Amino acid sequence: MLKYQEVADRIELAIKDKKLSQGTRLPSLNELISKYDVSKTTLVKALTTLEDKGVIYQVQGSGIFVRRQKRDGYIALMTNMGFTKDLENNKLSTKVIDLKIETPSAEVARELNCAPGEEVYFIKRIRYVDNNVLCIEQSYFRKKIVPYLNKEIISESIFNYLTEVLKLKIGFSDKYLRTDILKKTEAKLLELPNNSPGLYIDELFYTASGEPFDLSQTIYNYKHANFFIQSGQK
Amino acid sequence: MLKYQEVADRIELAIKDKKLSQGTRLPSLNELISKYDVSKTTLVKALTTLEDKGVIYQVQGSGIFVRRQKRDGYIALMTNMGFTKDLENNKLSTKVIDLKIETPSAEVARELNCAPGEEVYFIKRIRYVDNNVLCIEQSYFRKKIVPYLNKEIISESIFNYLTEVLKLKIGFSDKYLRTDILKKTEAKLLELPNNSPGLYIDELFYTASGEPFDLSQTIYNYKHANFFIQSGQK
Repeated sequence: MLKYQEVADRIELAIKDKKLSQGTRLPSLNELISKYDVSKTTLVKALTTLEDKGVIYQVQGSGIFVRRQKRDGYIALMTNMGFTKDLENNKLSTKVIDLKIETPSAEVARELNCAPGEEVYFIKRIRYVDNNVLCIEQSYFRKKIVPYLNKEIISESIFNYLTEVLKLKIGFSDKYLRTDILKKTEAKLLELPNNSPGLYIDELFYTASGEPFDLSQTIYNYKHANFFIQSGQK
Repeated sequence: MLKYQEVADRIELAIKDKKLSQGTRLPSLNELISKYDVSKTTLVKALTTLEDKGVIYQVQGSGIFVRRQKRDGYIALMTNMGFTKDLENNKLSTKVIDLKIETPSAEVARELNCAPGEEVYFIKRIRYVDNNVLCIEQSYFRKKIVPYLNKEIISESIFNYLTEVLKLKIGFSDKYLRTDILKKTEAKLLELPNNSPGLYIDELFYTASGEPFDLSQTIYNYKHANFFIQSGQK
């Protein structure tokens, strides 16, 4: 982990541990520099990251302040690490519907920037929160970057496996979000009546070096999915 | 505008003007420092902001690269400046339904941190994109911070008025997003059949000094609203 990210994580953890409320003033720049024993550049980078992430806000000439934390049970849309962490106070479980290796369609190959002949893992899962269906998820992983998956692995958090076992450095993601009327097959899997609303999120994940490795579509059950977005200055 | 924000804006504009594609490498840190004539701290802060905003990504030891831009017509959920800028290639218009000064309910007063007896503007608008209903919007503005509104002002972008006329420094916002079945009155305003899906976004906006000033609920027409979120590292 980069130094500024480590410092950002430590500051964020301290805010959560102390349950500091919105508007609480943090120590000054110089106090934080000496507390975390880092250069000004590193601290400024850590604070900018925390500001853009919605953890703090900085007021010119006045100080650094704590922002309101998200409501419990809401899924943060600004992160790209799956929602396991957001729902840590809830019981999560997963049912695997499909897992296979295949040659991607032209569209999937284009999105994932696959070379000709490259293969992908296709997986389909249903995810439950507190025994209610939270979402259906379909993903394509490039086998070149994620060489091995099995049913056991994808029954848990795939992102934990990618980062902790495969040591993959996950970079960033592009998400596209829309609402529509569920198709019959989707409503059935989500255990909802026909013509219920669905929240569709298409997402493309990249490694830290900018290579796309996972193209997914998640369809959320509107009764159990609530989302949170903190936006920063501009 | 702060120096690092100005530099960030200039770099972003250069990327858009030159239509640089995903993965294009930008000049090195030192080249950018001399090009924009700023300190390393300022440039690092500008780059971190652009990274968190999804404009670029940085690869340790390798360089600074351009990220994919959002699809045309999608509304960015990471910003807090309304969607006028996102839909600049579309025809936007507004119909004012209600505008009045009132004493806020206990809940609104709590969210906006109003003092006892403090008044708010209540406004309700329908917004159209290319002559289709895009959304219904209800907002409460603290009169203390937004002392004057009229029908003409709220027929256009309120955020342009706040920043350009009132010189209000807008800071950040908290958004809560969910999907539900529209109520009959909502479906009628959105020109949709009964029981259609709706996308609900509750949002609380703060000034740059951390004071809440605008509590709003926007209900989007699912046929005309598509959203985009770029998430950064972690």
